[in-house]
Amino acid sequence: MGNEKLPKRSENYSEWYNELVKRADLAENSSVRGCMVIKPYGYSIWEKMQQQLDKMFKDTGHTNAYFPLFIPKSFFSKEASHVDGFAKECAVVTHYRLKNAPDGSIIVDPDAKLEEELIVRPTSETIIWNTYKNWIQSYRDLPLLINQWANVVRWEMRTRLFLRTAEFLWQEGHTAHATADEAVAETLQMLEVYAEFAETYLGVPVIKGVKPAHERFAGAIDTYCIEGLMQDGKALQAGTSHFLGQNFAKAFDVKFTNKDNKIEYAWATSWGVSTRLMGALIMAHSDDDGLVLPPNLAPIQVVIVPIYKADSREKVIEKCQVIKKNLQKLGIAVKLDDRDNQSAGFKFAEYELKGVPLRLALGARDLENNTIEIARRDTKEKMSISQEGLEAKIQTLLGEIQQNIFNKALAFRDSHITKVETYAEFKDVLENKTGFVSAHWDGTTETADKIKDETKATIRCIPMNNPQESGKCIFTGNPSKERVLFAKAY
Amino acid sequence: MGNEKLPKRSENYSEWYNELVKRADLAENSSVRGCMVIKPYGYSIWEKMQQQLDKMFKDTGHTNAYFPLFIPKSFFSKEASHVDGFAKECAVVTHYRLKNAPDGSIIVDPDAKLEEELIVRPTSETIIWNTYKNWIQSYRDLPLLINQWANVVRWEMRTRLFLRTAEFLWQEGHTAHATADEAVAETLQMLEVYAEFAETYLGVPVIKGVKPAHERFAGAIDTYCIEGLMQDGKALQAGTSHFLGQNFAKAFDVKFTNKDNKIEYAWATSWGVSTRLMGALIMAHSDDDGLVLPPNLAPIQVVIVPIYKADSREKVIEKCQVIKKNLQKLGIAVKLDDRDNQSAGFKFAEYELKGVPLRLALGARDLENNTIEIARRDTKEKMSISQEGLEAKIQTLLGEIQQNIFNKALAFRDSHITKVETYAEFKDVLENKTGFVSAHWDGTTETADKIKDETKATIRCIPMNNPQESGKCIFTGNPSKERVLFAKAY
Repeated sequence: MGNEKLPKRSENYSEWYNELVKRADLAENSSVRGCMVIKPYGYSIWEKMQQQLDKMFKDTGHTNAYFPLFIPKSFFSKEASHVDGFAKECAVVTHYRLKNAPDGSIIVDPDAKLEEELIVRPTSETIIWNTYKNWIQSYRDLPLLINQWANVVRWEMRTRLFLRTAEFLWQEGHTAHATADEAVAETLQMLEVYAEFAETYLGVPVIKGVKPAHERFAGAIDTYCIEGLMQDGKALQAGTSHFLGQNFAKAFDVKFTNKDNKIEYAWATSWGVSTRLMGALIMAHSDDDGLVLPPNLAPIQVVIVPIYKADSREKVIEKCQVIKKNLQKLGIAVKLDDRDNQSAGFKFAEYELKGVPLRLALGARDLENNTIEIARRDTKEKMSISQEGLEAKIQTLLGEIQQNIFNKALAFRDSHITKVETYAEFKDVLENKTGFVSAHWDGTTETADKIKDETKATIRCIPMNNPQESGKCIFTGNPSKERVLFAKAY
Repeated sequence: MGNEKLPKRSENYSEWYNELVKRADLAENSSVRGCMVIKPYGYSIWEKMQQQLDKMFKDTGHTNAYFPLFIPKSFFSKEASHVDGFAKECAVVTHYRLKNAPDGSIIVDPDAKLEEELIVRPTSETIIWNTYKNWIQSYRDLPLLINQWANVVRWEMRTRLFLRTAEFLWQEGHTAHATADEAVAETLQMLEVYAEFAETYLGVPVIKGVKPAHERFAGAIDTYCIEGLMQDGKALQAGTSHFLGQNFAKAFDVKFTNKDNKIEYAWATSWGVSTRLMGALIMAHSDDDGLVLPPNLAPIQVVIVPIYKADSREKVIEKCQVIKKNLQKLGIAVKLDDRDNQSAGFKFAEYELKGVPLRLALGARDLENNTIEIARRDTKEKMSISQEGLEAKIQTLLGEIQQNIFNKALAFRDSHITKVETYAEFKDVLENKTGFVSAHWDGTTETADKIKDETKATIRCIPMNNPQESGKCIFTGNPSKERVLFAKAY
């Protein structure tokens, strides 16, 4: 590890991604089709995401709970549009016992067939709203603000590590409210939470918007999303927040007595982000040498590599330990790599591959001169500086790196939103410039489908506060009242 | 909630437990057979357990990772004894798609049958060791110290909330080592971590020991456990740590080059605790009025109930808010319940039911006298004290309560370990006094099985550092070299 070169992004972006995910010890494919193993280094980044998101959910009044992994098959039929979206490609549990066959092999016991098949949850609206029925009687029980951290399974045919896997980890918020207005406000609040998290922690600028009807979550009245742009010019949906109206309350008979003593159905939202965020993080910032991690999510923010010969080893490492302790006191995640069996060069390449934001190297000469070498992962800048005030410099630098990573992604994104007036231009931008294309659309699913068939581009969203501007649909020439954002997407 | 009385422990312990779990908002049965819903209050206790355990695992050098939910059926056949223990009662995924039937209903698509069935993990040794094969080549890759937080499924026929459910949440540590000694040391280290957690956080004294051969984990060389005692005199296994020898390394071909440049199989451990700990917590301390939570795991450590009439409301609540802020500054989890639509008496009963360690009540007269009423959940003591130095008093009290809860459980446990010499005595103690029974046993599985059939008591463990003492088996009269601990158990 760390010595072989990665494929280049410019030559094979897809191979570069796959190799990077494996070589940086983030994840790998398992022996179970479509299911990944999240390796310790990758998982430690996911943990940092979880911790921050969990804090943001709790700060906005939510609590966590846990609902069953399995959902009775019949639950999916209860919300008409939900079933089409979710109950198709899924893992179906049909039996509850294995037994030994006469030849000694293990077989499914035909006598242990379930009366009703169980579906491994692809999302939990149905089982949760079936539970809420017993929790909600009065407006005093509302709002109910619950989040769940869980694994879910969707039987994807073509999978890619983090981006699209059969099993993935996520959080799903499910809230119930007394009024439509409150539910819409919650939906938008969580969209803001996701956008803030994406920009401040992932360092990925996102466009907030609403999906066109045909891209809505199955069962939603409105689906809001945040869309990021990857370095290959493809969009990635990084989170969604749904206003579900009274659809699930009606399907599962969740009624309450309101303040006027009248019975009505509760209003719902749901919202989620997943280990897909790992894919966004990797693809938005990393380069041909490896991962580039924003300090706010880096499990190791600073690595110290001692450079020594046998006679200077003890003194050099001793000094490194002092520096480590001083940085830890400031809450900085620091690692001292004092392995004797690897060269400094090997270590440098390893931490570059793993995206550690700052690397310190200290040798015998530095001890004499009271200096230290400091290297930034994001810009590759390297400089020898005085050890004087090192901790403060590092704190400042970590902040600068976080900001620089975001700014770079923002500049790339902003230079990749292109207004077009014709379908020819549209196709040309998609093929050559890539990125988001802002274009007029006649508002019909039919047109969106045809454009998708011909170009693979989909409508990513109608941005929030979208300027109203009359124009003509690039595809049909029919009248349009606003532009929407198209892109090829993950 | 909070006004109906619970069943009494002395009259129906089992009903008392079931009702308490539901009424204190800890968990409830779901519509899926054997699967529970962990409600927000229950889950917040589990989160506190997770945080503390996770810290202890990390402090001992472990990192988290994530492995697939599904395990190919064939994996279970690879470790001979493991398959008998685990591959029998389990959830089997046989299909990956549903479709609409001609009549509009949803059915399993017969064309979407999996070539090899997938088992929802009952435990992850097989899938993890199959992965370790690629991670371990040299002694330099060892030790590999990994933990996973996950849901697992075991198709239990008789389920009880937290104690035995088809799906439960747990952590499973899986480590690989270069030598047997190191693996045994790890096994024992994690047993100590569990014991420390149980005693210091749960407030449950535990006996550390090793299981007799017939009670070992399927695939283990040795299974160590911690055993607690519940208030009804039944034992509860609260955690296990297994030395797996080279069994899984051999089954999954995990070899490495040792320091002498020789190829050998890696040595394994696994260890786990689960949401079963919630059951232990509830049953060890709670009383006929509800839950009694040790402060170290209480989501709300102090609740403040303002007592007011219309004219004093504002001033009373204002003072309560000041007290709340001062306590929060000290890191104490405090809730101010200023709901107008519930009486103080209702609130008192509610927090009693929910086991909040300390309750403060403050009224208009307290404002005048600079006093406050403070009530301990564990001893039911109530006193009016000066507001002077309140925060320090509360900190001290929380520590005292934690200690008192443990001491009470310890005294109960210690008075319920009974030495017996005859089988008649043995049965009498089990029936009438209950608790652990320390008795001589001839060391055979056959005898243990017969005793179990006749009395329902099992050998909980052979305690660590067990005194060697010759005697005669209470059942067969055959020679025995040490006493073992029997009990009826959850």
